[in-house]
Amino acid sequence: MPELEQLDQTAIDTIRALSMDAVQAARSGHPGTPMALAPLGWAIYSRLLRHDPAHPDWPDRDRFVLSCGHASMLQYALLYLSGYPISLDDIRKFRQWNSLTPGHPEFGHTVGVETTTGPLGQGLANAVGMAMAERQLSMRFNRPDLELVDHHTWVIASDGDLMEGVCAEAASLAGHLRLSKLVVFWDDNRITIDGSTDICFTEDVLRRFESYGFRVDSVEDGNDIGAIVAAGNAARESDRPSFIRVRTVIGYPAPNKQGTPGAHGAPLGADEIRRTRDVMGWPQEDFHVPPAVESATEVIRAAGRTGYRGWKDRLQSYREAHPDDATNFERAMNDQFPSIEDGELPVFDVDEKGMATRKASGEVLRKLMFSIPELVGGSADLAGSNNVAFKGLPAFSAPGEASEHAAASEDERAPRTIAFGIREHAMAASVNGMALHGGVMPFCATFLVFSDYMRPALRLAAMMGLRARYVFTHDSIGLGEDGPTHQPVEHLAALRLIPGFTVFRPADANETRACWQAAIACDGPAAMVLTRQSVPVFDRSRLAAADGAKRGAYVLAEAPLDQKNAAQAREVILIGTGSEVQIALEAREMLLAEGVRARVVSMPSWELFEQQDQAYRDEVLPPDIDARVVVEAARGFGWERWVGARGKMVTMERFGASAPYDQLYQELGITAQRVAAAARSFL
Amino acid sequence: MPELEQLDQTAIDTIRALSMDAVQAARSGHPGTPMALAPLGWAIYSRLLRHDPAHPDWPDRDRFVLSCGHASMLQYALLYLSGYPISLDDIRKFRQWNSLTPGHPEFGHTVGVETTTGPLGQGLANAVGMAMAERQLSMRFNRPDLELVDHHTWVIASDGDLMEGVCAEAASLAGHLRLSKLVVFWDDNRITIDGSTDICFTEDVLRRFESYGFRVDSVEDGNDIGAIVAAGNAARESDRPSFIRVRTVIGYPAPNKQGTPGAHGAPLGADEIRRTRDVMGWPQEDFHVPPAVESATEVIRAAGRTGYRGWKDRLQSYREAHPDDATNFERAMNDQFPSIEDGELPVFDVDEKGMATRKASGEVLRKLMFSIPELVGGSADLAGSNNVAFKGLPAFSAPGEASEHAAASEDERAPRTIAFGIREHAMAASVNGMALHGGVMPFCATFLVFSDYMRPALRLAAMMGLRARYVFTHDSIGLGEDGPTHQPVEHLAALRLIPGFTVFRPADANETRACWQAAIACDGPAAMVLTRQSVPVFDRSRLAAADGAKRGAYVLAEAPLDQKNAAQAREVILIGTGSEVQIALEAREMLLAEGVRARVVSMPSWELFEQQDQAYRDEVLPPDIDARVVVEAARGFGWERWVGARGKMVTMERFGASAPYDQLYQELGITAQRVAAAARSFL
Repeated sequence: MPELEQLDQTAIDTIRALSMDAVQAARSGHPGTPMALAPLGWAIYSRLLRHDPAHPDWPDRDRFVLSCGHASMLQYALLYLSGYPISLDDIRKFRQWNSLTPGHPEFGHTVGVETTTGPLGQGLANAVGMAMAERQLSMRFNRPDLELVDHHTWVIASDGDLMEGVCAEAASLAGHLRLSKLVVFWDDNRITIDGSTDICFTEDVLRRFESYGFRVDSVEDGNDIGAIVAAGNAARESDRPSFIRVRTVIGYPAPNKQGTPGAHGAPLGADEIRRTRDVMGWPQEDFHVPPAVESATEVIRAAGRTGYRGWKDRLQSYREAHPDDATNFERAMNDQFPSIEDGELPVFDVDEKGMATRKASGEVLRKLMFSIPELVGGSADLAGSNNVAFKGLPAFSAPGEASEHAAASEDERAPRTIAFGIREHAMAASVNGMALHGGVMPFCATFLVFSDYMRPALRLAAMMGLRARYVFTHDSIGLGEDGPTHQPVEHLAALRLIPGFTVFRPADANETRACWQAAIACDGPAAMVLTRQSVPVFDRSRLAAADGAKRGAYVLAEAPLDQKNAAQAREVILIGTGSEVQIALEAREMLLAEGVRARVVSMPSWELFEQQDQAYRDEVLPPDIDARVVVEAARGFGWERWVGARGKMVTMERFGASAPYDQLYQELGITAQRVAAAARSFL
Repeated sequence: MPELEQLDQTAIDTIRALSMDAVQAARSGHPGTPMALAPLGWAIYSRLLRHDPAHPDWPDRDRFVLSCGHASMLQYALLYLSGYPISLDDIRKFRQWNSLTPGHPEFGHTVGVETTTGPLGQGLANAVGMAMAERQLSMRFNRPDLELVDHHTWVIASDGDLMEGVCAEAASLAGHLRLSKLVVFWDDNRITIDGSTDICFTEDVLRRFESYGFRVDSVEDGNDIGAIVAAGNAARESDRPSFIRVRTVIGYPAPNKQGTPGAHGAPLGADEIRRTRDVMGWPQEDFHVPPAVESATEVIRAAGRTGYRGWKDRLQSYREAHPDDATNFERAMNDQFPSIEDGELPVFDVDEKGMATRKASGEVLRKLMFSIPELVGGSADLAGSNNVAFKGLPAFSAPGEASEHAAASEDERAPRTIAFGIREHAMAASVNGMALHGGVMPFCATFLVFSDYMRPALRLAAMMGLRARYVFTHDSIGLGEDGPTHQPVEHLAALRLIPGFTVFRPADANETRACWQAAIACDGPAAMVLTRQSVPVFDRSRLAAADGAKRGAYVLAEAPLDQKNAAQAREVILIGTGSEVQIALEAREMLLAEGVRARVVSMPSWELFEQQDQAYRDEVLPPDIDARVVVEAARGFGWERWVGARGKMVTMERFGASAPYDQLYQELGITAQRVAAAARSFL
């Protein structure tokens, strides 16, 4: 092992000792990787990462992502040693209720953690999004000689990350965009939980990353921080993203367990810890921290102070030279996006033949794109179909490549649209990274059925409360001929299931406008679920105003009182969402003709409706009316909540089929006739 | 363009003309890719694929997968020209209700379609599973000089397939296992829906596949069937899987639309079709098929007859030499797997401290592995944690690699366990491929939370009705310290949502046995959802027998009649699943002590319970008892179906947290106290 400066060795040993001890105390966790990666982590935090522990929200800080989140103790020890607000006592409470040191790093919970990691592959893909946000903001705000935005994103990724498909997608995208400020260190330890990586992972990883367009490099000894720092600095100079293999020994220097799967996911045990301390020349004392590390902390803090002050000075100069841009910069970085005036957005005329809600969405989103310069997004190769293709706005591309909008005005030089490629999972995970980075409000788009490909990232967006937006079109059998593989049936409910995720399924063009307004205002992730096919633009002079959609559900059409037989006519409630609201309205007409009083409730968002007060909810769905029918071209699963035990469902309990959509609605029984028949069964 | 034999050119032109015409008639679809790939498809069906249209279920046929399923007209035209049971009239009904020619190829619907494709990347990953099944069966059944199993899997994949992460995972696995009988043709047309692939996909694809361990090759002109056939034959000789780039022009030879995204996903239009026919020297007649193609069909049929007869002769020789093996082979290929006698499976003794259901599952599955030689499966690097590591059974590995079980007996030479690597999505998609291939009953395993990574493949398994089995362990906050990223909350409901997918969440070890029996018997995909933590093994002398689990739900503990106050005591029903059934039992004890009559229903499988007759369902959940409480450490979403409008839920409506699991149950309120309180609220 190369000679290290004494302070470095002390810091590294401290990380290793704390990792062993914390896992041992918690009686669960992952000691081996933090021990192996202590030198790499320390090299990053002390030499490569530009950060100021006193200002963890410094907009121009470098980002660090521990993609192998199970090695959380590495990050906690590094945060502690760097002077972030995490104490030795917090580390003693590793993996305990309400501690700052949960099993996997959690964004928004522990200061200095830039993203929640654990599900493999996500962190690396988040990092790609962070580097994209950096690119966007640097192009938007930097001025000659006044660079407000110029930082790197550093990642540690494990074999597990690299085996995951989401990482492959994200790396291909990063290579394509030539995200030169992205640096990935690969913990090449040749061990997975089930044994040697030889049992399942024998590809040539460096060659693969070269094929994506990465600059690749190797550090042969993961304990050689000089070599690590040199590789990191060389990466900084590259005009391509960098991928650096670092060969390590899991559990190093535990004499018996190092290099074995036994060091991965369980405490080393008191004996092995004792022996490891002896190897390190470490006192036999739990959670020992030598006083010397305080100097190490001070070195990091001092560098941070200098860097931060330099940047504050630049910000000051910038503010003097470009006061409006400076205001915009600070506004964006504080996630204070422009509010949308109602009048700015299109209002759609009554139209029996109608328009697809994806089309209405496209028109609203175009307006939003021009009103909110932070809105950045695109599609997984379905920009046209998803109605998110906006000519006149620059697209993300590799630097120096002639964008179609190279001659755009100064205001428009920053990329706004993204061709994610057919990479739904990396799209969603990089959108998470953009939202985490801040300064942009990202969105992405695909067919609703492919939300399945994005699900692990959608869950993390909800868990982190990220303001990410999704455009999911082709939302039911209404897409027609493409057939069951493309027709969502279970996806609406599957999205509603994710805690903190808000779903909107507007019924017509004007509800689409209202739902977009509500979606932009959401604090967490929100999805617009939209039709491929045309649906009528309702006549609001005869129906309630579309703004009711902003409350999640509203009475679109009252059950009229009939002078003649008002007393005896029982009222039924017909609930619909999206393209099926027209069916509910049609059924209501049929019922009215028979003297049955039927109200129609349009319910574009369960989540928003659940947030309304009880009085409003009872007004829309009066508790004493249990004659209720829901019509939705999706599984009925869960609708019992709104229609009650006696309620009826006109829903899809099977997969769809390939045929023209109007025929599918007939054959699969999503019809006004069935809704009316269900309503009549209450009488 | 090279000279083609006249018959080939006629067949190719027929494919192109039918593709244009069918899409035009349907007024939707994808003409450009079938047109471009007509020579490749024809080369495969007429020269490379060993198949017999008269015996589409020939076990030793080559498999063909059109991973870019949107090019379905290519496959339909090829099936038609090869003499499969699909008529010109069927092609006229392209994308119509109930036709044999739906928008994307559907397995089980159109004879000759080996898998349902459309969602990109899935087909290629299915093909990897098919090649794995071929490997397994060849090692199990082939004898010196008597090869019953020796066939190839041919794939056509598009740019979209290659961008998807699932394809990257599957390709890495295929390269690792050196699946030499897998041949992938890449349709390199440089066009995606949104434009040139340059806008998002600039990686070096061949280099990437080399890094996985594929043999790579190129055909520079996609119209050169001689070159295609030569490349295919060379691939057949390779000891590695093959990846062959075929450069094509989408929409060829349409004079105006070829090479543009406009040829991708919409009819060419009458004018362009007219011009294209002129270019081809084709009659201006819709759905024209020249009589000459009958000769082409006969050539394919004759080759098929010869191949099939040769194989039947080999089977006859095999039957004479190895009668038992021949019977087993035919049994396996007909998906007639050995039935499991109750007595063969372990029975678990009463144990207050208990055992994790994953552990009980491991013991049952070990017995099943030795009783059902067709059971083949493994884990995404969590074999130990999922309890699916079975020593004594050979593992899949690259040919020639010394397996740990190289010296296994003759009966055990075929691989039975699979280290899928940390590739959940490809794991599930290759399991689909194995089930599609037949002859094996595949299973796979990971943590329940990572079922999200597998979801697109799970959906397809359900759509195709495949007998795939899933072991999902670590099924709730009960996994404890790993925290919210690893704790499923919405996943139980998300799986229950998939039509045709059966979920089992057994309460204890003996229910685990019963549920495994039911799962093995399921006709479609089925998942075992299992605890990480120990749960009591119930005393069945005091409770109902665990076999009740086979009916989906059963009365585990009756509400006892109390002589003293039977009349006035209202009965409440406590419903639980999995690890929460013990909580329901505990609450019942508390309520009984207060004189409240409470029955406990264990409900391991909604789907199985829904299949019971009304009388049984009413017996378990009497309609007149609406005082019902469910306890499940997952979202309550959907439980209204069973507890009714007045029912109460003790469920998880937020993400979990990192802490010891018993504390999590307390802090998050999944407790007997809360269940009892909810029950009391009815009194």
